[in-house]
Amino acid sequence: MRVGVLTGGGDCPGLNAVIRAVVRKGVQEYGYDFTGFRDGWRGVMEGDTVRLDIPAVRGILPRGGTILGSSRTNPLKAENGIRRIKETLAGLEVAALIAIGGEDTLCVAARLSDEHGVPCVGVPKTIDNDLSATDYTFGFDTAVGIATEAIDRLHTTAESHMRVLVVEVMGRHAGWIALHSGLAGGANVILIPEQRFDVEQVCAWVTSRFRASYAPIVVVAEGAVPKDGDMVLKDQSLDSFGHVRLSGVGEWLAKEIEKRTGKEARTTVLGHVQRGGTPSAFDRWLATRFGLHAIDCVRDRDFGRMVALRGTDIVRVPLADATARLKTVDPALYKEVGVFFG
Amino acid sequence: MRVGVLTGGGDCPGLNAVIRAVVRKGVQEYGYDFTGFRDGWRGVMEGDTVRLDIPAVRGILPRGGTILGSSRTNPLKAENGIRRIKETLAGLEVAALIAIGGEDTLCVAARLSDEHGVPCVGVPKTIDNDLSATDYTFGFDTAVGIATEAIDRLHTTAESHMRVLVVEVMGRHAGWIALHSGLAGGANVILIPEQRFDVEQVCAWVTSRFRASYAPIVVVAEGAVPKDGDMVLKDQSLDSFGHVRLSGVGEWLAKEIEKRTGKEARTTVLGHVQRGGTPSAFDRWLATRFGLHAIDCVRDRDFGRMVALRGTDIVRVPLADATARLKTVDPALYKEVGVFFG
Amino acid sequence: MRVGVLTGGGDCPGLNAVIRAVVRKGVQEYGYDFTGFRDGWRGVMEGDTVRLDIPAVRGILPRGGTILGSSRTNPLKAENGIRRIKETLAGLEVAALIAIGGEDTLCVAARLSDEHGVPCVGVPKTIDNDLSATDYTFGFDTAVGIATEAIDRLHTTAESHMRVLVVEVMGRHAGWIALHSGLAGGANVILIPEQRFDVEQVCAWVTSRFRASYAPIVVVAEGAVPKDGDMVLKDQSLDSFGHVRLSGVGEWLAKEIEKRTGKEARTTVLGHVQRGGTPSAFDRWLATRFGLHAIDCVRDRDFGRMVALRGTDIVRVPLADATARLKTVDPALYKEVGVFFG
Amino acid sequence: MRVGVLTGGGDCPGLNAVIRAVVRKGVQEYGYDFTGFRDGWRGVMEGDTVRLDIPAVRGILPRGGTILGSSRTNPLKAENGIRRIKETLAGLEVAALIAIGGEDTLCVAARLSDEHGVPCVGVPKTIDNDLSATDYTFGFDTAVGIATEAIDRLHTTAESHMRVLVVEVMGRHAGWIALHSGLAGGANVILIPEQRFDVEQVCAWVTSRFRASYAPIVVVAEGAVPKDGDMVLKDQSLDSFGHVRLSGVGEWLAKEIEKRTGKEARTTVLGHVQRGGTPSAFDRWLATRFGLHAIDCVRDRDFGRMVALRGTDIVRVPLADATARLKTVDPALYKEVGVFFG
Repeated sequence: MRVGVLTGGGDCPGLNAVIRAVVRKGVQEYGYDFTGFRDGWRGVMEGDTVRLDIPAVRGILPRGGTILGSSRTNPLKAENGIRRIKETLAGLEVAALIAIGGEDTLCVAARLSDEHGVPCVGVPKTIDNDLSATDYTFGFDTAVGIATEAIDRLHTTAESHMRVLVVEVMGRHAGWIALHSGLAGGANVILIPEQRFDVEQVCAWVTSRFRASYAPIVVVAEGAVPKDGDMVLKDQSLDSFGHVRLSGVGEWLAKEIEKRTGKEARTTVLGHVQRGGTPSAFDRWLATRFGLHAIDCVRDRDFGRMVALRGTDIVRVPLADATARLKTVDPALYKEVGVFFG
Repeated sequence: MRVGVLTGGGDCPGLNAVIRAVVRKGVQEYGYDFTGFRDGWRGVMEGDTVRLDIPAVRGILPRGGTILGSSRTNPLKAENGIRRIKETLAGLEVAALIAIGGEDTLCVAARLSDEHGVPCVGVPKTIDNDLSATDYTFGFDTAVGIATEAIDRLHTTAESHMRVLVVEVMGRHAGWIALHSGLAGGANVILIPEQRFDVEQVCAWVTSRFRASYAPIVVVAEGAVPKDGDMVLKDQSLDSFGHVRLSGVGEWLAKEIEKRTGKEARTTVLGHVQRGGTPSAFDRWLATRFGLHAIDCVRDRDFGRMVALRGTDIVRVPLADATARLKTVDPALYKEVGVFFG
Repeated sequence: MRVGVLTGGGDCPGLNAVIRAVVRKGVQEYGYDFTGFRDGWRGVMEGDTVRLDIPAVRGILPRGGTILGSSRTNPLKAENGIRRIKETLAGLEVAALIAIGGEDTLCVAARLSDEHGVPCVGVPKTIDNDLSATDYTFGFDTAVGIATEAIDRLHTTAESHMRVLVVEVMGRHAGWIALHSGLAGGANVILIPEQRFDVEQVCAWVTSRFRASYAPIVVVAEGAVPKDGDMVLKDQSLDSFGHVRLSGVGEWLAKEIEKRTGKEARTTVLGHVQRGGTPSAFDRWLATRFGLHAIDCVRDRDFGRMVALRGTDIVRVPLADATARLKTVDPALYKEVGVFFG
Repeated sequence: MRVGVLTGGGDCPGLNAVIRAVVRKGVQEYGYDFTGFRDGWRGVMEGDTVRLDIPAVRGILPRGGTILGSSRTNPLKAENGIRRIKETLAGLEVAALIAIGGEDTLCVAARLSDEHGVPCVGVPKTIDNDLSATDYTFGFDTAVGIATEAIDRLHTTAESHMRVLVVEVMGRHAGWIALHSGLAGGANVILIPEQRFDVEQVCAWVTSRFRASYAPIVVVAEGAVPKDGDMVLKDQSLDSFGHVRLSGVGEWLAKEIEKRTGKEARTTVLGHVQRGGTPSAFDRWLATRFGLHAIDCVRDRDFGRMVALRGTDIVRVPLADATARLKTVDPALYKEVGVFFG
């Protein structure tokens, strides 16, 4: 049997670990052949393939990125996308497809599997940890580790210079990275997209922190938004700047804090540093086990499924479940962490 | 209300994070006073205390070790141990006790709570991850990360010199560190205490690895034991050596591999490096949440309980459950990982 | 004999290592007493002191920041600054002063020593490595290491997404951090303050890099400035933004590259992350040896001197030499490194 | 013109950085062709070559090991070794040879160049930093960094458990790694091969350290040897053990300390972990500059030379100088560091 493998969407540490596990177990235990598709669904539509055998996956476990390449091509939006996929698979005699990706990639896999009879297995991937149906996704632990290390380093400067340090981390729709790295790094304020923040409250925490010890560290998710009256998006200098996603809220907030508290504030924008480089041991373990279980789904002909983490077990859930809703930070959890603010 | 806190047993990254969370929430939300006991149960028996308030826990989150000190003193084995504990607590008006420790420490807390009416809450701690009733214990992720980084580095040398590299990691009774770091580090053989290993099989994997690519890396838990016929404990040079725990099985195995395969072999014994230093972000998150929930147990007067991780939730389990049996590596999981051997 | 110690200027990993070495050797070998002054020259002017003995310096070697605090207070610009310093030193019977700091701090020490008969010894400190008379300053190696690790991580994302990644690193007047981290991280363009850059040339390198392999990484020092015609400082959105120092040139350059090449570009601003946290082994070694030799200067009554690194030796140079001119990147060295551009 | 490149001797982080720099500059600036020889001198003698052009050196800068492979084959000891080298070079039209290696490799290059008219340029390589004529060799900073990080981690355990921790680091003939990592890690005793140590003195330091604060950390180079009366090499259990190089002196010393002071002692043997993995930023900078200057030697037809570091400059020295004598730790420097013992 020949099995196709693709990786779609943004970069994420652990993709190569999944690919390696799928191929190692598939070849050694089940005698499968593999076809790698280049750059996600684009490669499937265009029949653009990569050799994928045991030598090809040697040494890739600790490497970030993906040996298959990735893209955001969506066959549901491409002309004859589905038909071209079926033609490629038929032409190459690919009998099953393992799609490793985030919401978009898995959504396509779900539709292909449920509506078009293409036998798909999904492996969830998002650095933001915002996919339902799994406790964690790989890449998240690595990102949190990098952000935490940065926050650790900033404490010394905060101590010595009495400046507010604002750290902008990834998370456009969910605050998981901000919450975990902020807690682990001992931040004094953590702002997430799930709850609009009140700049006055932030300034009150900043001021009380200065009184209690030294300068505060504020961790803010890139998608965090102030309350209506705060008008961040109407800020002209920001608008003309263009890159709202990357340097928006952190810079804006630092300026507001300076204006309102009279304290100097500085911003660090970690950006893509969070999603590159070697995966943490946790992510390698998780990604590898996802890969081992994904190929077992293929062997069991259990298609339309996604592998997921539940506690310490890898389970199988319907592909559709994974993409039904975004997994955001529960208000109760945010409140639990709030004991460290100020 | 006054709450006592102690840490018992071996060193473990994350202990300070628990203490900080307990005190921060206890003081700020519930208005409790705290008394720290020095060096575990010894401090309680002898009334040896440490100041424990918010200034005392400032800045300790990223630090390894424990500001309270630790010891292996067991009051159940000490003369009038229980009576002296009760006297200390009464004298200091300590109304509840949070015991952070491994099997031994928690066992004492369970007995105190269940049989002697001392209101105890337990927080599980073991770098070996071998406590039942919780998915993970803090310290484990840090240890696995350190061991994985070491294995990563050894790959370059293995590649260049065609030598077998044996890495001995912690784990006297359970193979969790070996299993996780071995998998994450791409080891070619992983040996754990749960399953006696066959030196001939190890040598077969070593030989096949040399054929397939470059020199193999063998990860062995310090408690791994060869099959009977292999007579490791009867080895004279080992016996006269004395330090079986530290340099035993790794060195022995390297010599056996050299003898049987004719390939050069070298050993690295990571030792205490695995249990020191700053905790990983994962461990800081887990330890902090354990602390927050432990103090909630006190507020709820829910004694005789231990906090535990289930998926992404912190739950409460009877203290006695935690110590009922050692959590060892399931044979099915070991087999799953075995696809990468050789 | 009583010796005063102060640290002035910006945060820099290794300050504590100097303090520890000075005190350890001064107490143990020469029997000196020490007085720490809080927050640089401010503490000397105001007689604000910190206990400084062997217990006070225990455990500080690996810690960033400075246990003495720092400030940018300049006694030469303060009313009666010099007189107040002399009064404090006389009142406390401080017979010699060790000043650890950058250009400003050492300039004060030089004037005090040469013109006012205050016996000073200087220890050079600048993360930017731009002090003359010494091969390296401590803090620099740590900053370069942090920036290099960030660039390493960005390569994976550059590979997977075909985006230009601009990394803005510290260096307002000298490009040492950009040059070393850019070279070590395999950057495709490195821009330094010493040489005005030509945006068209940068875009040409970017384009040629895309042709040769994958997306380029551009490392730019915060003080790098484009050629006249490029008008960065006249850019309106930047002007209204305010924080030119922190997020200026990196963001501006990314936008220009997008505009001119049609390729997507993203910016990472490492900011204060580069100057915080534990010093590298190299910086601990250098800072410690500086401290040991500074106290030897005191013993030898060799004042008005600064310790400096020459090859592997620590030498003594006149304090005035250190501040005579900024040590900038030699055009020949920049050209040497330029072989890797594009 | 065609230039040959080889790497000889033990593994060392930075080898790939040299190779990349040589090829990048040689191809781009001088239009040379390159031939890589596999496994050091063996490849030259046997005509075993590797393709070496710009694509071949892409992405290798951060990787440990060497893409050319290495061996300890010595053509001076092989039958017709020199003649076979000359034949290979003539057959492949290789007009110059860049030999990257330690004492043995460079010695061959010196002989080939001086006595046999083979145009050679040497690049010094040794993780032990014991080559004369250069301030530092690449690989050393990486090794020191790894050992220092391990020592940092051990401090927490030393604090909590009152155990002596012995760390055995690399260095058979020179104590550079022990000296630098011991100082940077805040060790309480450092033992080097250059000075026979007195176990009684070590025990006195251990005891005094326990009195002053907490448990001591002892860093010992693998080649350190006790004074005659201490008879380490006559120890039977050690002799029968076989692996004196790896686990000898550390284990022996821990046992002696236990015996003589009554304190528990544990050993960590870092082993090959110190020489693998990604090079530090310092080593990448140094190795790259060595490569750039080595190819300049070829262009200048300045053969029989080795590139070397002097301060911040790369200079050229006669190949013979480099191997004339081992660069060991100066007694004065060891004494300087000794202020931290005990």
